[in-house]
Amino acid sequence: MKAAIIFGSKSDVNVMKGAAECLKEFGVEYRAFILSAHRVPEKLIETIEHLEREGCECIIAGAGLAAHLPGVIASHTTIPVIGVPINASLMGLDSLLSIVQMPKSIPVAAVGINNSYNAGMLAVQILSIKYPKLGKKLKSFRLNIKDKFIKENDEGVEL
Amino acid sequence: MKAAIIFGSKSDVNVMKGAAECLKEFGVEYRAFILSAHRVPEKLIETIEHLEREGCECIIAGAGLAAHLPGVIASHTTIPVIGVPINASLMGLDSLLSIVQMPKSIPVAAVGINNSYNAGMLAVQILSIKYPKLGKKLKSFRLNIKDKFIKENDEGVEL
Amino acid sequence: MKAAIIFGSKSDVNVMKGAAECLKEFGVEYRAFILSAHRVPEKLIETIEHLEREGCECIIAGAGLAAHLPGVIASHTTIPVIGVPINASLMGLDSLLSIVQMPKSIPVAAVGINNSYNAGMLAVQILSIKYPKLGKKLKSFRLNIKDKFIKENDEGVEL
Amino acid sequence: MKAAIIFGSKSDVNVMKGAAECLKEFGVEYRAFILSAHRVPEKLIETIEHLEREGCECIIAGAGLAAHLPGVIASHTTIPVIGVPINASLMGLDSLLSIVQMPKSIPVAAVGINNSYNAGMLAVQILSIKYPKLGKKLKSFRLNIKDKFIKENDEGVEL
Amino acid sequence: MKAAIIFGSKSDVNVMKGAAECLKEFGVEYRAFILSAHRVPEKLIETIEHLEREGCECIIAGAGLAAHLPGVIASHTTIPVIGVPINASLMGLDSLLSIVQMPKSIPVAAVGINNSYNAGMLAVQILSIKYPKLGKKLKSFRLNIKDKFIKENDEGVEL
Amino acid sequence: MKAAIIFGSKSDVNVMKGAAECLKEFGVEYRAFILSAHRVPEKLIETIEHLEREGCECIIAGAGLAAHLPGVIASHTTIPVIGVPINASLMGLDSLLSIVQMPKSIPVAAVGINNSYNAGMLAVQILSIKYPKLGKKLKSFRLNIKDKFIKENDEGVEL
Amino acid sequence: MKAAIIFGSKSDVNVMKGAAECLKEFGVEYRAFILSAHRVPEKLIETIEHLEREGCECIIAGAGLAAHLPGVIASHTTIPVIGVPINASLMGLDSLLSIVQMPKSIPVAAVGINNSYNAGMLAVQILSIKYPKLGKKLKSFRLNIKDKFIKENDEGVEL
Amino acid sequence: MKAAIIFGSKSDVNVMKGAAECLKEFGVEYRAFILSAHRVPEKLIETIEHLEREGCECIIAGAGLAAHLPGVIASHTTIPVIGVPINASLMGLDSLLSIVQMPKSIPVAAVGINNSYNAGMLAVQILSIKYPKLGKKLKSFRLNIKDKFIKENDEGVEL
Repeated sequence: MKAAIIFGSKSDVNVMKGAAECLKEFGVEYRAFILSAHRVPEKLIETIEHLEREGCECIIAGAGLAAHLPGVIASHTTIPVIGVPINASLMGLDSLLSIVQMPKSIPVAAVGINNSYNAGMLAVQILSIKYPKLGKKLKSFRLNIKDKFIKENDEGVEL
Repeated sequence: MKAAIIFGSKSDVNVMKGAAECLKEFGVEYRAFILSAHRVPEKLIETIEHLEREGCECIIAGAGLAAHLPGVIASHTTIPVIGVPINASLMGLDSLLSIVQMPKSIPVAAVGINNSYNAGMLAVQILSIKYPKLGKKLKSFRLNIKDKFIKENDEGVEL
Repeated sequence: MKAAIIFGSKSDVNVMKGAAECLKEFGVEYRAFILSAHRVPEKLIETIEHLEREGCECIIAGAGLAAHLPGVIASHTTIPVIGVPINASLMGLDSLLSIVQMPKSIPVAAVGINNSYNAGMLAVQILSIKYPKLGKKLKSFRLNIKDKFIKENDEGVEL
Repeated sequence: MKAAIIFGSKSDVNVMKGAAECLKEFGVEYRAFILSAHRVPEKLIETIEHLEREGCECIIAGAGLAAHLPGVIASHTTIPVIGVPINASLMGLDSLLSIVQMPKSIPVAAVGINNSYNAGMLAVQILSIKYPKLGKKLKSFRLNIKDKFIKENDEGVEL
Repeated sequence: MKAAIIFGSKSDVNVMKGAAECLKEFGVEYRAFILSAHRVPEKLIETIEHLEREGCECIIAGAGLAAHLPGVIASHTTIPVIGVPINASLMGLDSLLSIVQMPKSIPVAAVGINNSYNAGMLAVQILSIKYPKLGKKLKSFRLNIKDKFIKENDEGVEL
Repeated sequence: MKAAIIFGSKSDVNVMKGAAECLKEFGVEYRAFILSAHRVPEKLIETIEHLEREGCECIIAGAGLAAHLPGVIASHTTIPVIGVPINASLMGLDSLLSIVQMPKSIPVAAVGINNSYNAGMLAVQILSIKYPKLGKKLKSFRLNIKDKFIKENDEGVEL
Repeated sequence: MKAAIIFGSKSDVNVMKGAAECLKEFGVEYRAFILSAHRVPEKLIETIEHLEREGCECIIAGAGLAAHLPGVIASHTTIPVIGVPINASLMGLDSLLSIVQMPKSIPVAAVGINNSYNAGMLAVQILSIKYPKLGKKLKSFRLNIKDKFIKENDEGVEL
Repeated sequence: MKAAIIFGSKSDVNVMKGAAECLKEFGVEYRAFILSAHRVPEKLIETIEHLEREGCECIIAGAGLAAHLPGVIASHTTIPVIGVPINASLMGLDSLLSIVQMPKSIPVAAVGINNSYNAGMLAVQILSIKYPKLGKKLKSFRLNIKDKFIKENDEGVEL
C-alpha cells in the first residue's frame, strides 16, 4: 500500500471516490478508511501508526465543516497529507480554511473544494519523485490529456 | 482546579488573559496550559486525562488559523469545551469557523473572536449551575454591571 | 424542567428538533417555546423569568437572519444560553455572527450552523457537571458512538 | 426633542458624533444616550418608553459586533429606527448583518458602516416629510453641496 | 400617492410585491414603476421629478447585482429612499453592499435581502410621523402581531 | 483628448494617479475630473455629453464604497467605461461588486482593487486597436517590461 | 475575424453563448475556441499568436474556479482581454477574484459573474472606437433598449 | 538542486524567505527565482524546462492577488507544485482561491496564507519519501519541536 484515503463518514464517499479513481488509473496501491478525528481519535492514531509501519507514503484526507481530520493526521505523522475540503456547509469555505491554515511546521497540502480527483493526482505527482515508472505514466497521461483535449475541441465550437 | 485554560503559543497570552481575568474576578480556581494540538498531540491528550482525573469541570481553549485545539480537546473528553477564536489571519474568521462548525455529537461552545473574557464568563455561568455561591456572585456581578453602566452613563453624553 | 428550547417561528421546527432529539436520548426534561425577540419581547422576558423560577438550568435558542434571540435571552438571565445559527439567508453566516459576536460580559455559546443536535449535546455536557448520572450516560454514549463507528466502518470501504 | 441617538459605549462616541453633527447642522433637537441592549435591557426599554412619551420621532442607534441594539429598540417601539453598523471586528460586516437582516414586520433602516453622518441625514429626510421648514433647509443643503462640490472641483484636477 | 415602489425588471415583481402588500394592509396610497437606473436613466429622473411634484413622501427601490437604483434615486431627490437588496447573484450580498454603503450626505435606508415587506413597513413607520391615523393603525398592527403570535404559540410546541 | 479619468473626491487622487501616470507614459491625451454620481448627478451627465462631443474614446472611473460612478457613467454613454474599485471600506470588496456586477447590456470593465495603473493600461490597449502607433508603443513597452524584469532578476535572488 | 471567444470546457458553452449572441446581434465576426490554460498551454499560446496574425482585436475569455485563462491570455498578447467569471464553485467569487486582481501592467477587463453577454457588449463598445458603423449600431441599439423598456413598462405594473 | 522557490517580485522576498529557511534547516539544495507568470511567461516556461532537466523534484511558488504563478507552473510540468498565497490585497483570500481551486488533473498543493515556511516543510516531507536520510532528519526535527515545546511550556503559564 502506497497511499491511504481517509474520510469521516459514508456520506463522503461520493466526493472522495474521485481520489480513488485517479489512483486506480495510475495503478497506485491504496486503501480507504472511514475514520473520524472527533468520534474515534484513538482509532485514528492507531491507523496512522499502522500506515507508517506498512510503508504508506502519502495520505489523502477529506473532511467537511470544521475539517480537522487532515491536520490531526498531519500532527501524528511525517507522511505528506493532502487535504480535500468537502462542501457540507458554507460552500466548503469553512472546510478549506480549516484545512489550509495550518500552524508553522505542520503543513497540510490543500486541493480545491470537493476536488478529490486532484488529491489523487497530487499523490501521483509526489510518488513519481521516487518511482520513475509512475513518473513515466504521469507524463504520458498529461500528453494524453492534451491530445484528447485538442482532438475533442480542435474543430472549434459552435456558439 | 475547576477550570482549565489551554492555548497553543505564548503569543496568544495577550488575547487569552481575558479568560483568566474573569475567572479570578469570580474566584474560580483554574490552571493555564500552553499546548498545541498539532505540535504536541500526545502531551495534549495526557493533559486532558489529567484534567479529567483532577475533576476539572470546564475547559477554555483558544486558537488561531486552522483552530483545531478546542475541537481536538472536545474529542477526548466530555467536559464542556469553550472555544475562543483568535485573530491571527483573515480577521479570525478562519478560526471561528474551525471552532464552531463541529460535527454531530462533539460540540464546542464558541464565543466571539478574541473575546476570551466571555469564555471566562460562560465558564462561570456553566459552573454556577452546580455551585450556588458562584451563581449568587454572578447575579450580583450582573447587577453591578448594570448599576455601574447606568451611573457612568446616566447624565447622558455630549455629542 | 432542566432545559428550555426557544425559537422564533414554526418554520424553525425542522432545524430545532435535533436539540430535542438529543435531550430525549439523555432523558433531560425540557420544554420548547416559540417566542420572538422582536415580535413578543415582553412575553419573552416573562418566559425567561418563569424559566428562572422553575429552575431551568440551560437555554437553547435558535434563530436565523439577524439572530438576536439568543443574545436577548442572555441579557435577561445568567442561565447559560446556547445559540443555534439557523440558515435562512446568506448560508447562515449572518445568523452565526449575530449570535457569536456578543459584547463583553454577556456571552452566548454558539454551535454550528443548523446544528441544533450539538446544542442539545452541549446542554447535556453542561448539565453533567452537576448531575453525575447524566455524566455517566454521556460517557457511555460517547463510547457507544465509538463502538458503533468502528463496527460500521471497520471492514474499510470500497472506493 | 425630535430625535434620539443611542449607542452602547463611550468608545463609540467617535463614530457616532457624525449623526449629532448632522442633526445640529439642521437644527434638529436631539438627545444622546449610552445604553446597551445586553447590559441594561430594562433601562433601555424604560428609555424607549420615555422617548415615545416625549414625542421623539426618529431613533438613531449605533452598535458593533453582534449589533442587537437597533433591532431591540425597534422591537419596543414603532418610531423608525436607523441603525449604524460600527466596525469593531470583521470590518463591521458582523454588525451590518446583525442590523439589516431583521425579521418580517420589524425593520431597521441600515446605513453604511461607521457612516453615522448618513444616519443623521436620513433622520433629517424622514422628519422633513412632516416639517416643511426642515424640508426647505434640506433642499438648500443639497444645492449647497452641489455648488460647493462644483466650485471646488470645477477647474479640474492635476493628476 | 404617498409612496412609490420602483424596481428594474418584471422579474423582480415576485420579490417586490411584499412591499405593496404591506402598504395595502395599511391603506397607504402608492404607485409602482419598473424603471432601470442603467437602461432608462433619463426616464428615471423624469419620474423622480414627477413623484416630487405629486407629493410622494417615500420611495421604495429594489435592485439586484450592482444595485445602483436606490442610490441613483437618492441622488436626485430629498425624499427618503428605502433600498431592498434583491438576491440575483452572490446571495444578494453584492446588492446589499451596493445599496447600503452610500457616500456622506446621500443615504439610502437598507432593509434585509429580499425583505421588501419590511421596506413597506419602514415606509409606514416613516409616514406615521406625519399621519397620526396611520400611526394608530401601526400601533394596533403591532399589538395584533403580538396577540396572534402568542395565541398561535401559547400552547407551546411539540419537538 | 482621447481619454478621461473621473473620480468622486480629492481623497481619491492618490489611488487614481496611477491611471494618469500610465496614460502619460504612452502619450495618451487625457483630462481628469472630480465628479460625484450622487452629489452632482446633473453635472456628471453634462460632462459625459461634453466628453462625447469632444471625441473622448475611453473613460476611466474610480470609486469606493457603493461605487456607482462607473455604472452611472456607462448608463449615459456608449464609450467604454473602465471601473477602478477603491478600497474605502471592506477592503474594496463592496466597491468591486458595485462596479463589476452590472446588468445585461450596460457593462463596466472592472480592474483590480486600487489598481488604477491597470485601468490606464487597459485604456491604452483599447485605444491601440484604432491607433497603430500606440499599438507599437504598447508592444515595445511590453518587451521592455520583460527585458527589465529579466535583467533585474536574472542573477537569481538570495533567500 | 474581429473577436475571439475562448473558454476551457464544453460545459461552459451554456454560460458563454451570451457573448456570441451579442456579437451576432451586432454583426461582429468572431470565432470561438475551447482551450485550457492548464491542460493545453502550448496550444493556447499558439492560438493567441494565430489570433494576433489574423488581426483579431478583442478576446473574450471565460473561466471558472481558479480562472487563470483570461490572465494567461493577457500575458501573451496586447490585444484587450475581457474576462467572464463563471460560477463553478463559491458562487463564482473565486473566479471573479482570479480574473480581476491582475498585477500591474497586465490588466484583464472583468465583467459580472456568468454575464458573458456583457463581455460581448464591452467588445462591441471597444470595437466601436475604430469602426464608426458599429458605433452607430451601438447607439441605436441603446436607444432601442430604452424605447422597448419604456414601452413594456410604461403603463406601470400591478403589484 | 532538489527544490526551486519561485515568486513574482522582490517585494515578496520577505514572505518567501520562510521557505528557504526551512529548506536550509534540512540541508535541501534549492535555488530561488524571481519570475512572473504574466510579465515573463516565456522565461518562466524556459526555467521550468531547465528545472526538469536539472532533476528538480519539487517547486514552491508564491504569489499574491490573482495568483496564477503556481497554477501556470503546474500546467507546464509534472513536478509537484506547492503554492504559497501571499497577502497583497483582500487578506490573501484572492490569492488562496486563485491557487487552490485548480481544475481537474492539474493540482497545486496550497499551504496557508503567507506561510511559506510550511511550503518548505511540505517539500521536505515530499522529498523524504525518496530520501531516507531526509526522512530521518524530519522525524527527529518533529521530536525536537515536541521536546522544545514541552520544555518551554511545561512549567505552565501565568495568566
